[in-house]
Amino acid sequence: MKISEVSRATGVPLSTVKMYLREGLLQPGEKSQPNQATYGPEHVQRVRLVNGLIRVGGLSVAAAQEVIAAIDSDQPLVQTFGVAQRAATTKHSRESVEDEDLATVDAVTAGWLSNPQGPGRYAAAAAVGAFEAAGQRNGADWYQRLANAAMLVAEADLDLIDTRSGREEKAETVVLGTVLGDALFSGLRRAAQEHVSNTRYVTPGSAPRHAPTGYDARPGTNERT
Amino acid sequence: MKISEVSRATGVPLSTVKMYLREGLLQPGEKSQPNQATYGPEHVQRVRLVNGLIRVGGLSVAAAQEVIAAIDSDQPLVQTFGVAQRAATTKHSRESVEDEDLATVDAVTAGWLSNPQGPGRYAAAAAVGAFEAAGQRNGADWYQRLANAAMLVAEADLDLIDTRSGREEKAETVVLGTVLGDALFSGLRRAAQEHVSNTRYVTPGSAPRHAPTGYDARPGTNERT
Repeated sequence: MKISEVSRATGVPLSTVKMYLREGLLQPGEKSQPNQATYGPEHVQRVRLVNGLIRVGGLSVAAAQEVIAAIDSDQPLVQTFGVAQRAATTKHSRESVEDEDLATVDAVTAGWLSNPQGPGRYAAAAAVGAFEAAGQRNGADWYQRLANAAMLVAEADLDLIDTRSGREEKAETVVLGTVLGDALFSGLRRAAQEHVSNTRYVTPGSAPRHAPTGYDARPGTNERT
Repeated sequence: MKISEVSRATGVPLSTVKMYLREGLLQPGEKSQPNQATYGPEHVQRVRLVNGLIRVGGLSVAAAQEVIAAIDSDQPLVQTFGVAQRAATTKHSRESVEDEDLATVDAVTAGWLSNPQGPGRYAAAAAVGAFEAAGQRNGADWYQRLANAAMLVAEADLDLIDTRSGREEKAETVVLGTVLGDALFSGLRRAAQEHVSNTRYVTPGSAPRHAPTGYDARPGTNERT
């Protein structure tokens, strides 16, 4: 197909597709005539992927280039994970986090085979520091329960990757899951918070203001099964 | 204390503290002389809170004003939650999400007492749509496991709020937990992904590149207990 058809198939504007090509984010088509190239389904998929990283995931072109290079390389998946994590995480370094906040994170992730210089450990410690600076003492129990839930999510994430066949498909899932997966979990967490707070704080007999149709305010009748 | 002492006690620059005062984010001090006011520990705490929302949490001044007004009001905590969630969530509306993506979210959150117009449901549906647009079919199992983990996190979040005494302290925890809690979970999830991928993908006998001290690559020896 022609490049204009790649644009039509993906819904991504032609000028954007050409920019992806120019920036090395989209592999070149096969030259069919001196001034024309032919593209296939692999180009359509790549445009969808790059668009997801940049337009939805908010990666810069430079970060997307790193991530795409990691997908196209033959480095082990663990390294591709690292590249995607660094591209999708606000930069924190050892110097920008406090010892005691790192200690809080290390205590609830004891035994994990994580990279001590990894973006996850520093990002978590920076968040702990932000709570402390805002005058919130959160207690070890909350941190531990979040860490336990994070491990459940990570196991689900890796199981999803295992369902993909071939290194490239797996690497694509690693990258997109890292870049888009936070927004998904955050949305689900907010919906779950609504459920728990409606369950705990709403006086029996008075339905919450935006109760779903069929909501019944008698205690117990809408519990999760 | 004087306003300059509030600045020193919090580490927030004086000009920023004055801006918070001007924008109604910080309650006025008690007039002690025509041109001077006295501030107390409640002002110090408020400056820490506002700074956490704006500087670390990335809220706009307008969003922070809404959130602070919700803390200072006497509306039920469920409503304060809603205000904080809307302030801290990328805006998505019914029109910006696809029916089938909403259906995916609704299927894995069936029975939840969540607000059908809530920011969580739309944000999750928008993320599902982003995966689909990027050419990823994720399967119901992954979504369901993420939803289950989100419920565990939400229960921990609400238990944390229950440890606070008084409406204002609870409301502060609601607000900061919503605004900073995503970054914390995201960091823990990345660290957990490193653990699971090191456990699954690293060939026994070869330690991961950045293995923590004491790492032993024989299978089973570093498992989480």
